[in-house]
Amino acid sequence: MANRIRVTVWNEFVHEKKDAEVKKVYPKGIHEAIAEHLRAQPDMDVRTATLDQPSQGLSDEVLEKTDVLIWWAHMAHGDVDDKLAAKVRDRVHKGMGLIPLHSAHMSKPFLLLMGTSGALKWREDGKAEILWVTKPGHPITAGINDHFVLPHEEMYGEHFDIPEPDELIFISWFGGGEVFRSGCTWKRGAGSVFYFRPGHETFPTYFDKNVRAVIANGVRWAAPCGAPPVTYWHFKSILEK
Amino acid sequence: MANRIRVTVWNEFVHEKKDAEVKKVYPKGIHEAIAEHLRAQPDMDVRTATLDQPSQGLSDEVLEKTDVLIWWAHMAHGDVDDKLAAKVRDRVHKGMGLIPLHSAHMSKPFLLLMGTSGALKWREDGKAEILWVTKPGHPITAGINDHFVLPHEEMYGEHFDIPEPDELIFISWFGGGEVFRSGCTWKRGAGSVFYFRPGHETFPTYFDKNVRAVIANGVRWAAPCGAPPVTYWHFKSILEK
Amino acid sequence: MANRIRVTVWNEFVHEKKDAEVKKVYPKGIHEAIAEHLRAQPDMDVRTATLDQPSQGLSDEVLEKTDVLIWWAHMAHGDVDDKLAAKVRDRVHKGMGLIPLHSAHMSKPFLLLMGTSGALKWREDGKAEILWVTKPGHPITAGINDHFVLPHEEMYGEHFDIPEPDELIFISWFGGGEVFRSGCTWKRGAGSVFYFRPGHETFPTYFDKNVRAVIANGVRWAAPCGAPPVTYWHFKSILEK
Amino acid sequence: MANRIRVTVWNEFVHEKKDAEVKKVYPKGIHEAIAEHLRAQPDMDVRTATLDQPSQGLSDEVLEKTDVLIWWAHMAHGDVDDKLAAKVRDRVHKGMGLIPLHSAHMSKPFLLLMGTSGALKWREDGKAEILWVTKPGHPITAGINDHFVLPHEEMYGEHFDIPEPDELIFISWFGGGEVFRSGCTWKRGAGSVFYFRPGHETFPTYFDKNVRAVIANGVRWAAPCGAPPVTYWHFKSILEK
Repeated sequence: MANRIRVTVWNEFVHEKKDAEVKKVYPKGIHEAIAEHLRAQPDMDVRTATLDQPSQGLSDEVLEKTDVLIWWAHMAHGDVDDKLAAKVRDRVHKGMGLIPLHSAHMSKPFLLLMGTSGALKWREDGKAEILWVTKPGHPITAGINDHFVLPHEEMYGEHFDIPEPDELIFISWFGGGEVFRSGCTWKRGAGSVFYFRPGHETFPTYFDKNVRAVIANGVRWAAPCGAPPVTYWHFKSILEK
Repeated sequence: MANRIRVTVWNEFVHEKKDAEVKKVYPKGIHEAIAEHLRAQPDMDVRTATLDQPSQGLSDEVLEKTDVLIWWAHMAHGDVDDKLAAKVRDRVHKGMGLIPLHSAHMSKPFLLLMGTSGALKWREDGKAEILWVTKPGHPITAGINDHFVLPHEEMYGEHFDIPEPDELIFISWFGGGEVFRSGCTWKRGAGSVFYFRPGHETFPTYFDKNVRAVIANGVRWAAPCGAPPVTYWHFKSILEK
Repeated sequence: MANRIRVTVWNEFVHEKKDAEVKKVYPKGIHEAIAEHLRAQPDMDVRTATLDQPSQGLSDEVLEKTDVLIWWAHMAHGDVDDKLAAKVRDRVHKGMGLIPLHSAHMSKPFLLLMGTSGALKWREDGKAEILWVTKPGHPITAGINDHFVLPHEEMYGEHFDIPEPDELIFISWFGGGEVFRSGCTWKRGAGSVFYFRPGHETFPTYFDKNVRAVIANGVRWAAPCGAPPVTYWHFKSILEK
Repeated sequence: MANRIRVTVWNEFVHEKKDAEVKKVYPKGIHEAIAEHLRAQPDMDVRTATLDQPSQGLSDEVLEKTDVLIWWAHMAHGDVDDKLAAKVRDRVHKGMGLIPLHSAHMSKPFLLLMGTSGALKWREDGKAEILWVTKPGHPITAGINDHFVLPHEEMYGEHFDIPEPDELIFISWFGGGEVFRSGCTWKRGAGSVFYFRPGHETFPTYFDKNVRAVIANGVRWAAPCGAPPVTYWHFKSILEK
């Protein structure tokens, strides 16, 4: 894979502008905190995009030139254009990787690709989250110890209404008694989806060493790998040639 | 499970009215051919519904009282109301079983639940299909030999654009050189989906002994099994009580 | 499925004879505590078997007449005859259900069927375990609320070295910061395996209402469903007939 | 992943010495035909090993230094030392990739890792096999069109007694009416297994362009990716520190 991976980090970029507490943690926006680490990777070309830009940050051209799309959103799910959400889904079908983070479990593109409600339990208590690796040896957990701790996070709890993951990568523990499938992969068409839970806007999660390593691993895992186009619809028997 | 299973067999019911050839094979409609066998089961209450009825055959009350919904459609996918398709999806999330048959791989409810394009290869050549059991011991294959033959069917070929099935039940062979994952299950929310391929409108497939047995097995497998409601959204720690 | 399910509850039956504390909790043995509830089911015929019996409790005839085998073991894994373990595996391949409980994650039959090491983390601290349902609507969780609590249990923690489960049914939470995939299903041949975690010998877990309900559900889910024998090895084309 | 992948191609190397027909197709042995293509890859270091060598070709040192092991065997499954088979299994658990080819569906290491019987249907008729991609966009199918044809092969047919694959990559079509899951992946411990069907000893399958590309892709997919060791067994709570 000599080709560099073209990553677009998309962020609704609303909390950081409205909420002083969030702005303090992510002065340049969540997207920049994520992009910063990816730009330091030797095999990635990284751009950012936000909801307030023309075409909501994702023109057809940008989408076409994106190998892996990272998606952070929360308050503004409803503002994302239905047509854009459908385009993201279709690009995944054609091979693009998608990494929905944290509250993107309710984002339009993720729900379109899953076919479930994405519902879960939550509580903003800012206590510790412990992430346990359930898939050692998987590319997404490369270099990650068998668990790591985030000192302050929002709680997400089961039941998480998702399709049975193709691969379950992490399970999270929360001090209130809850557990959560916090790293999950699925294939959709020729594309790959990696949902990764951590990242509440009021905590510096995207500066955490392990979270950053997992996201970079996830980008490499989700990158397209050169699938020739598939023939669909009416088909003449290959035996008749 | 002493309760009887309430089955609704839904059919767009278009080909049978427009096309003399189809009418000859299914004079009462495809839905009646399917319902006939299910009505003979001791544990099922069966009704039929068609697109030309009020509420497209599926009022809220009918949907609410349906444990397992069978769906046959082809020409009229686009005529199904988007809101109805979303209601079917939501009922599956709450526990209803859904059995999309044959060309329902492109029906709105199935695609909403899968998140993929449902695309495939096809050819109407009316030659034999051989279905091989890949899951002996599964309730859906109870009483079915390790393969069975349908003398005349339409060809469907891979790649079939679906999520990796939770369970792959049948693979079909076609004489033109093609193969197809023709029996697949998925869970979505508290509900179950069983896609079953055979059933082109010009062939008497739904009178076939094995096809009928598989559909009846599928109904039993997909029937809800008494799931208590799940608590979602804001959640107080159970340790604080 | 009018046929009754023939259940054999197998227990190594060692702790209860050697350890006064365990004997107090399970005076008749763990097998009797489990069997007691199953005997009260209208659709089950239940027998028990223990390691100290002739043929280690599982003669060919008993195995042949067992639809679902429940397996509790801990100290005496090594004493189980390799040939018996292989027979149990082969019976599962032919359709028998197997429900390994708790420390049976290291039992010979389970490891033979999984192909992994079965390793995990553990700690005997007797604190609470909370089990969360990750598969609402599954027959094994019928009637079970979205979580239940066992006040005193041994801790098991990830990574649990098992193949990716076909279906993940429960995840457990422990107060020391650990999580565990505590309800998992797999198919092997025509048979079904349901691993269920709870049941340390020093706690009255098998008298718990929810644990008992899950095991009874598991028996029904794992029961064979009438699979015709499959043809293997040299095969003449069915098209040549 | 700057590190080169250390590949060992193991072959029982019996047919090629006993059977003139096979020797004509593979004068240097099947292992050399496979190794030839892998040696031409810029990212692989390739060695071969055969049953007739000391330690059956796989000393502890060789195994330890193998990232991905390819395994071809047929007549001599029974001659492979049980201890060696167990060592191969254990190395997979620790992260080694294993690629069992063709008749290795009955090899000891594969069966130990699967927990099933590996049984199937077969017929040596030397007719065409068509392999259909069921997973476009997967690294193993990179650069492979949606199907390819092998003009002469042995037939393998379903039911193939394997655990439900984590990912189904290829399904094969045979002219006698059969189908087969001919490309399947599973994770076991920290290691990866890719079973790939083609390769009967009397046909030049391992010189086929597509087969060679799939095997090279499989090696890259199955290569270990730097998993830190996992802590198992007795575990002190991380919250007590």
